[in-house]
Amino acid sequence: MLSIDDINENVSKINYAVRGPIVNRASQLSKEGRHILYCNIGNPHALNQKAMSFVRQVISICEYPELASILGDKFTKDVLDYSKNILKEVKNGLGSYSESNGYFFIREAVSRFINQRDGNTASSPESVYLTDGATQGIQLILNLLIKQNDGIMIPIPQYPLYSATINMLSGKPVHYLHNENKNWDVDLLELEKSIIMAKSKGINVKAICVINPGNPTGSVLSEESIENIIYFAEKHNLTILADEVYQENIYKGEFHSFAKIISKLRVKSVSLFSFHSTSKGFFGECGHRGGFFEAKNVPLDVLEQINKIKTISLCPNTVGQIITYMMVNPPKNCDISFKTYENEKLSILNSLAKKAKLVEEGFKNSDGITVNTIEGALYAFPKIRLHGEMNDNEWCLKLLEETGICVVPGSGFGQEEGTFHFRMTLLPDEDELRIIINKILEFNSRIRNCNF
Amino acid sequence: MLSIDDINENVSKINYAVRGPIVNRASQLSKEGRHILYCNIGNPHALNQKAMSFVRQVISICEYPELASILGDKFTKDVLDYSKNILKEVKNGLGSYSESNGYFFIREAVSRFINQRDGNTASSPESVYLTDGATQGIQLILNLLIKQNDGIMIPIPQYPLYSATINMLSGKPVHYLHNENKNWDVDLLELEKSIIMAKSKGINVKAICVINPGNPTGSVLSEESIENIIYFAEKHNLTILADEVYQENIYKGEFHSFAKIISKLRVKSVSLFSFHSTSKGFFGECGHRGGFFEAKNVPLDVLEQINKIKTISLCPNTVGQIITYMMVNPPKNCDISFKTYENEKLSILNSLAKKAKLVEEGFKNSDGITVNTIEGALYAFPKIRLHGEMNDNEWCLKLLEETGICVVPGSGFGQEEGTFHFRMTLLPDEDELRIIINKILEFNSRIRNCNF
Repeated sequence: MLSIDDINENVSKINYAVRGPIVNRASQLSKEGRHILYCNIGNPHALNQKAMSFVRQVISICEYPELASILGDKFTKDVLDYSKNILKEVKNGLGSYSESNGYFFIREAVSRFINQRDGNTASSPESVYLTDGATQGIQLILNLLIKQNDGIMIPIPQYPLYSATINMLSGKPVHYLHNENKNWDVDLLELEKSIIMAKSKGINVKAICVINPGNPTGSVLSEESIENIIYFAEKHNLTILADEVYQENIYKGEFHSFAKIISKLRVKSVSLFSFHSTSKGFFGECGHRGGFFEAKNVPLDVLEQINKIKTISLCPNTVGQIITYMMVNPPKNCDISFKTYENEKLSILNSLAKKAKLVEEGFKNSDGITVNTIEGALYAFPKIRLHGEMNDNEWCLKLLEETGICVVPGSGFGQEEGTFHFRMTLLPDEDELRIIINKILEFNSRIRNCNF
Repeated sequence: MLSIDDINENVSKINYAVRGPIVNRASQLSKEGRHILYCNIGNPHALNQKAMSFVRQVISICEYPELASILGDKFTKDVLDYSKNILKEVKNGLGSYSESNGYFFIREAVSRFINQRDGNTASSPESVYLTDGATQGIQLILNLLIKQNDGIMIPIPQYPLYSATINMLSGKPVHYLHNENKNWDVDLLELEKSIIMAKSKGINVKAICVINPGNPTGSVLSEESIENIIYFAEKHNLTILADEVYQENIYKGEFHSFAKIISKLRVKSVSLFSFHSTSKGFFGECGHRGGFFEAKNVPLDVLEQINKIKTISLCPNTVGQIITYMMVNPPKNCDISFKTYENEKLSILNSLAKKAKLVEEGFKNSDGITVNTIEGALYAFPKIRLHGEMNDNEWCLKLLEETGICVVPGSGFGQEEGTFHFRMTLLPDEDELRIIINKILEFNSRIRNCNF
């Protein structure tokens, strides 16, 4: 019989905290009847965010085209037209395989979206790939890049998909620290230090991963920081992987895509892969696994290798593709659905902005917990002052047991040695969020009083 | 800039024929206005097979639950109830992530399905994993098993997902030949020969992949052959990967699952992973990427490693999961939709059986082409007699250029040295299929007359 010693050792050594032991303990408590406040994962609909009506109406017709005539005028005409247009492009319905890279008409729409977002950066559908969520794309590119022991730079803190996948592929994660004192900015000096250290160990560093807006940090990179990273990549011949899945979730400042800045700088020698998803923003359609990536400055023969990998898994799921289409091609202001669409969108985004403020202010002047300005994404990554009596794992577990609140320890994302954090989402209802913040503060002050 | 020499050499060396150069040439011709008869891929809806109404009605309501009240009595009550039940189980709609292994209620339903299909084999939801199509599950298990240079036995001919994935993971495909003269049966002697050869090269053989019903062979393994393979795996301490995605597509004989036979034999020391999909059978829902695998005789600590890999990609797409649920939990004969469901199902399956006969008889008595009895799956794998003037790649390309028919050369699946084949699907309409067969026969006799 298969034994644990027989299996791929790269699999055994990976670690994935976002759904790790604390979350498992939470499920167990939940099964025992305990009310758990889940703040561990960016899963908007699970925390009562509503699906966009337009999105779901269109999918329902695409799934069962007979609905169009059954419904008569129960759906607005633009919804019917939008769906009819998709069905025309898709030809044989959502049950056929699409092209391996995704439907061509959707890749065209993604290119148009990128060119509009960034000013014309000459995006073309031939370098756009539709994926089952951003995760699949990131894993594909890491698989493409990594030969045994190649190094990939990843931020600390990071989203653990990166370390897990790099380890699984026999690569070496090369850490660079976000500067917590500068609101999680990226220092050029730190990047240089990190790559020198890796090279001194004989590691061949191939690429740098950047998550902007930051997960778990909640920071948004300035144009200058992005420029620095691009020039750094150019100097060291690194490919950039830009994880931009939270680009619609901005509470302060402005989002600049790597594609835009690399085009503006006219840097032609740095290959860039940018990732986006339908799971975040205001769609929050996590379960449907939609997403895409765009390749820039990548030669044709490498794109062909990507095509080949894509063919093996046949095609991304068609509903995820259709939702991606709606994300990059929303109703226009002359459409009947536009007003509802905008209202739903703004209600979600405004509420998130309010909640970001709530969390920031809740922890700002507290005793023993500090937090940076939350500029974007769906998370806060507060720092907890602990003095050796417990680490953040133990803190989070105790928090869960005593309050029912489920957050993820900073160690799951990586953090500067000697510091402790937790990640929580901004997603619960405002009222619930207030309760959560108060419970955390009360818990932490109790813990501190016990210890000192 | 990234160059082809920088990338993972395991990616460069993979080869994937089902969507390879001949299919690319077909797309090109199609863009130039040529009418192409696609027989290269098992994509039922692309060849006019209709989606099951029940399936699509349920999904449309799950996507947009407000439909239930809008529709009133336009959908039958059992469709509304079925959908309502799913929405109750799913809790937050299809836009939330499910558990990484898939919704628990669906894994329970899969277990019940397996226990009913096989007689109670003690399947439990804890060893069922929902996946984005069978492909994702097969790739996951190969990734779990393969350490550098480990050998995995694969049939020749095979579905090229296996060789491509094994190569990508630095494993070694170890070929065993199906016996074409015994209607593609598997000989024990051939298995022994193959593993001895591999071991003599120092390859550590870990597992054997079996595709039953066969792709591309169209054969169905007898109970005896399955027993032989299980005892062979026991003798050599191999894990079995049983690809059973065509289990509903049977035209002759009977389908026996590996899970059933391994339970009947009371073999406890052979680990088994069995794969199923919503893409084939009579659903044909390829684009929705639904599927599952079940693990048998796999220890708990290994299952936990699988759970960990699953968490990294968050969850299988929710629509694919719901379709899987409908596949294993169809309407019952007391339900209002039952009759329509059965009619649609039988119409698809009967037509496929007729077409299998058509292809078999079409090529049976022909000059220069022979074919075995087509017992199952969606393909025929006819042998072409060629005498060195051209190989099967050239034959298929010439066929495409001259007739517009797109089939896949046998070399893409592997074949005994000196033999030549092509794979074609049984999916085109009956009338079109007759035309295709005649065109192929006419083309081949023309080719033969030119050469000899």
